[in-house]
Amino acid sequence: MSEVAGRMSVQVAAHWLEKGQGGRGVLLGGVPGVAPARVAILGGGVSGLNAAQMAVGLRADVTVYDISTARLAEIDQIFDGRVKTAYAAHAAIAAACASAHAVIGAVLVPGAAAPKLVTRAMLALMKRGSVLVDIAIDQGGCFETSHPTTHDNPVFIVDGIIHYCVANMPGAVARTSTFALNNATQPFVVRLADMGADAAMRADPHLARGLNVSHGHIRHEAVASALQTAYVAV
Amino acid sequence: MSEVAGRMSVQVAAHWLEKGQGGRGVLLGGVPGVAPARVAILGGGVSGLNAAQMAVGLRADVTVYDISTARLAEIDQIFDGRVKTAYAAHAAIAAACASAHAVIGAVLVPGAAAPKLVTRAMLALMKRGSVLVDIAIDQGGCFETSHPTTHDNPVFIVDGIIHYCVANMPGAVARTSTFALNNATQPFVVRLADMGADAAMRADPHLARGLNVSHGHIRHEAVASALQTAYVAV
Amino acid sequence: MSEVAGRMSVQVAAHWLEKGQGGRGVLLGGVPGVAPARVAILGGGVSGLNAAQMAVGLRADVTVYDISTARLAEIDQIFDGRVKTAYAAHAAIAAACASAHAVIGAVLVPGAAAPKLVTRAMLALMKRGSVLVDIAIDQGGCFETSHPTTHDNPVFIVDGIIHYCVANMPGAVARTSTFALNNATQPFVVRLADMGADAAMRADPHLARGLNVSHGHIRHEAVASALQTAYVAV
Amino acid sequence: MSEVAGRMSVQVAAHWLEKGQGGRGVLLGGVPGVAPARVAILGGGVSGLNAAQMAVGLRADVTVYDISTARLAEIDQIFDGRVKTAYAAHAAIAAACASAHAVIGAVLVPGAAAPKLVTRAMLALMKRGSVLVDIAIDQGGCFETSHPTTHDNPVFIVDGIIHYCVANMPGAVARTSTFALNNATQPFVVRLADMGADAAMRADPHLARGLNVSHGHIRHEAVASALQTAYVAV
Amino acid sequence: MSEVAGRMSVQVAAHWLEKGQGGRGVLLGGVPGVAPARVAILGGGVSGLNAAQMAVGLRADVTVYDISTARLAEIDQIFDGRVKTAYAAHAAIAAACASAHAVIGAVLVPGAAAPKLVTRAMLALMKRGSVLVDIAIDQGGCFETSHPTTHDNPVFIVDGIIHYCVANMPGAVARTSTFALNNATQPFVVRLADMGADAAMRADPHLARGLNVSHGHIRHEAVASALQTAYVAV
Amino acid sequence: MSEVAGRMSVQVAAHWLEKGQGGRGVLLGGVPGVAPARVAILGGGVSGLNAAQMAVGLRADVTVYDISTARLAEIDQIFDGRVKTAYAAHAAIAAACASAHAVIGAVLVPGAAAPKLVTRAMLALMKRGSVLVDIAIDQGGCFETSHPTTHDNPVFIVDGIIHYCVANMPGAVARTSTFALNNATQPFVVRLADMGADAAMRADPHLARGLNVSHGHIRHEAVASALQTAYVAV
Repeated sequence: MSEVAGRMSVQVAAHWLEKGQGGRGVLLGGVPGVAPARVAILGGGVSGLNAAQMAVGLRADVTVYDISTARLAEIDQIFDGRVKTAYAAHAAIAAACASAHAVIGAVLVPGAAAPKLVTRAMLALMKRGSVLVDIAIDQGGCFETSHPTTHDNPVFIVDGIIHYCVANMPGAVARTSTFALNNATQPFVVRLADMGADAAMRADPHLARGLNVSHGHIRHEAVASALQTAYVAV
Repeated sequence: MSEVAGRMSVQVAAHWLEKGQGGRGVLLGGVPGVAPARVAILGGGVSGLNAAQMAVGLRADVTVYDISTARLAEIDQIFDGRVKTAYAAHAAIAAACASAHAVIGAVLVPGAAAPKLVTRAMLALMKRGSVLVDIAIDQGGCFETSHPTTHDNPVFIVDGIIHYCVANMPGAVARTSTFALNNATQPFVVRLADMGADAAMRADPHLARGLNVSHGHIRHEAVASALQTAYVAV
Repeated sequence: MSEVAGRMSVQVAAHWLEKGQGGRGVLLGGVPGVAPARVAILGGGVSGLNAAQMAVGLRADVTVYDISTARLAEIDQIFDGRVKTAYAAHAAIAAACASAHAVIGAVLVPGAAAPKLVTRAMLALMKRGSVLVDIAIDQGGCFETSHPTTHDNPVFIVDGIIHYCVANMPGAVARTSTFALNNATQPFVVRLADMGADAAMRADPHLARGLNVSHGHIRHEAVASALQTAYVAV
Repeated sequence: MSEVAGRMSVQVAAHWLEKGQGGRGVLLGGVPGVAPARVAILGGGVSGLNAAQMAVGLRADVTVYDISTARLAEIDQIFDGRVKTAYAAHAAIAAACASAHAVIGAVLVPGAAAPKLVTRAMLALMKRGSVLVDIAIDQGGCFETSHPTTHDNPVFIVDGIIHYCVANMPGAVARTSTFALNNATQPFVVRLADMGADAAMRADPHLARGLNVSHGHIRHEAVASALQTAYVAV
Repeated sequence: MSEVAGRMSVQVAAHWLEKGQGGRGVLLGGVPGVAPARVAILGGGVSGLNAAQMAVGLRADVTVYDISTARLAEIDQIFDGRVKTAYAAHAAIAAACASAHAVIGAVLVPGAAAPKLVTRAMLALMKRGSVLVDIAIDQGGCFETSHPTTHDNPVFIVDGIIHYCVANMPGAVARTSTFALNNATQPFVVRLADMGADAAMRADPHLARGLNVSHGHIRHEAVASALQTAYVAV
Repeated sequence: MSEVAGRMSVQVAAHWLEKGQGGRGVLLGGVPGVAPARVAILGGGVSGLNAAQMAVGLRADVTVYDISTARLAEIDQIFDGRVKTAYAAHAAIAAACASAHAVIGAVLVPGAAAPKLVTRAMLALMKRGSVLVDIAIDQGGCFETSHPTTHDNPVFIVDGIIHYCVANMPGAVARTSTFALNNATQPFVVRLADMGADAAMRADPHLARGLNVSHGHIRHEAVASALQTAYVAV
């Protein structure tokens, strides 16, 4: 799903940059003789990489920010010098805001709230009609001014900057996302069908950790806690 | 402007393929393990070339159709084998409709009505929720079911197929388009300023042909005729 | 040797697709205006990757199938979107057979018989004159209808489909293969020469596991068993 | 057809370089750590360009020779520095023979016998088991030792060098070639059907030049001469 | 020679940007995490194209300026979006100076003095230690502050900006340049040898225009004028 | 710094190959019709990879040598067949010397003296005016004839071969190198500021190993030993 969200984020940014959508009225790739838009991608993980692929594909001027210099070197190698890479220092991100037409927030720290990389103060540096896309919104968002939105009402504006913070971005391309989920889950389904549930879970702790309910009991501690019900270990 | 429209056409197709917009819910480039969408581009001129650049950039499965085999060879060379090329026979276009998720109509015949390459009957072959983008709408459109639309109300649906037929596509990215127009017109403006209007037009018949009004007379035959006014040659 | 076999498999497929060889008479890359052939590569390991490099190089329409979504993402990244990737479900492989002009079997499971991915029933879906190349033949083959062949008599036909199942494919390019083997074995030879056999094997368990005979005894259990001779540990 | 022949020439060279075919036993692309084969392509026209595309695609070390420095610059640009280019001086071709594993003769001078670029003396410089492919064989061939062969018996050996001189190379991939020919001829057929033969030929001198027989007379001077029959102008 | 000079210009810029040479101390391509240098190339002809190839090859951030939008579109296509293109308006060039680390002057107007695109006032906008390379110096140079220099003393500094204005840049790579000149002149030499001078010049007016002296007379008007000698027509 | 040195090494080689610098007078990339220079890169680690990127970018004919076949396969994949790879046997390196115009020594064995890959005897095989660049000079150099030089006096000549052995290559592009160092050290500085030195070092043994002096005592054993002072553990 990180791949879907990363790839979606760029077509979303392109759309909201259109004049009729309230955006700045720029084409991501420009045309010959007219400068392309600048796209800043915060985070060089799976989402950021996929966002960069699409932004480069649309011929934008792309910079990927990360705090891992090793990851920046990988990104540089993957794109064969076709994207710029920069260390994600506070000052560099502020400069990115001042320069970019679109900022993609792709900072996903597993199991933790995303850091607030773009502060409200930085919005004042941005061009009116620029677009922020917050892929990290499920983890609280990586822009200070983000809050979750829905596909029905996907954007809001703060200080003249368009914020796209849809919590379930892959839902927009449900068919593609469904196939992607099938690919990820099918091996488990096959094993459940072949071995039966008990044997399958004994054989694969990764699968076992996914158990929520069995024999009338809640088997997942976090679920039980959320439902204020008793948790019964298997 | 052909370049802008060609590049815009793909981001428009990507947008209207989203589920929430009524589209088929597919991501143009798919993701690893999930097939990309198929994009058929009718016409390998400037618009079609630019559309193909963006569609390839978003990692779609792209085929360009043209009736010039020489142009198909150029396209093949430009993309280094990365797009497929096909002769634009009637049967090939019907097959393209049956297979594609998005069809871009980029057939611009200078000074003539665009041919109706996709007939209404072909729509029945298409997947529900597929998208047609008609770049040739200013010349009457190259789909039988096209009629001009506006940025406020850009699409309509015929037989379950989304039609995007905005007559002034470059207006969506007004800033980019303005710079592009400036690049095209600036040399004339400079020459007018340097030489004065009369000398500039004498020196450049291309510029002279653009004269509409001077010394109180209509100087352009088609304009005079449209306004039912007298035409007075310079 | 996996690299050699993977790269060979595509030039073999191209050759047997020629009309004079009994094949379907298609050129892998087509030409501008004529569709390329479709090549399905089963397995995205070293052999499959090398096969895909060559098939893309000849401008075929290539899809790589694997059951590891992580590997599919790597393949997607390595080819920068130039090949399609698909999850190797049974149904997907059947569809691949129905569509492809050449199927490369590159499923090498270390130390195990290759799974029979293409069943005899699937052959009925294939176009007459299509070509199967079974790189996994040394491990029993990954097509149900495979059996080993030789360079003298490399192919046989089942249900109209050409099977190329040469057990020692790298032998066809003996000079290249010899240099490749030298590169792999030279470090061991140098160490044997520098240190003497005993010290070299003590220093490198990987080398020691290769010992077959010493001091008149069989030192390799599997060899001893195959020869029905006594195995004597070092 | 030049495109088909150009692309075929490389897969033919790859095949005949195999040990079992009597070739040198090298894989065009080598493998990592083992040098690729060197391919010399004489002539940078359509055939040569297509041959170079395939040879680069198979990762050979490719040099294109031509006597037009302008064309060499185009080739350099098309391949983005991925092939070498060289002026086709006599000495350079001799050096190419001494170095190359495969030499593709793609020198097609319209309406003239192909020049004999590779002399018999140069064969002595070549490695035993190297392969010459003469695409220009229909125009007499561009190697001194060439003579036409057939798909049934495609090669012969002179001084240890394999000569592939099949006069109708595209026939090997008849299906691809047929579609390519259809693309080229269909516009004429449509016009003949729409306008009738007489009107169609009056409207298109290019078509008219193709007329051989009408109203019982031979209408093509060369045909009449070849058949020793009377030629009657239309 | 335009190709040699264009390619040389970038390695010259890279060299003089080194700290020890008095330059700004930046590496053209930066490294992962550190921004590349910006290179502005004025003129998109043969020299500019070759300069852009090398600057992109070294991973700089490259913009090509030209007043032909058609040429900018070609450049965009050749580099597949990898360089930026901009209309060479006065203001754009001033902005380029303010931003760039190296400016390559590649504006060659055949048979005319090069226009002075970079004025002395623009130098004040540039970063100290930036480098100007004037490929057009043989035609008077395209920077206001240029004057010809030699390989022995190749640079001078104006307002803190390093100027490299060697009049015969290709001389630095004499071996490469000699071969390039041979390729260009060899066809004439062969024709002179084959036909004799008189017949060769009669057959080729292009060659005839190169005649300077024959039968004791000066045959080239400009040469005669420069030497204040009598000019005698052939 | 390995990245900076690797990238620098190629622009240094290009510079010293110029005729005026005493070099062979060849342009690394040649021009269309004139062969590129051959660059041999010894070592496929970070430095070697970055050197290869630049050498390919300048369109040289590049071969990377390494003793790890796995690394050679990675290099082959990264460059998509655009560089050649070869096993770094003694004979292969001698052949490289005989053929190459520039040899980049990029063999960095962590914590050990670099092996002497190019012997003095091999220099006799090289073309006069060829260039050796020894990136490994800080570890003693990987050419037998290397000794450290400085930016003021960067090269010396042995047997007609130019040796560039500057010990601190990144110093030439001090601005780029400083930013690169900042990226690497900033995380430590931030942690020191946030946590105080003691806590920061307790939390990060990697940081703690960098302590040299505290509370008036030498805390680093090697430093104490070098200064012949008492070492006091923390």
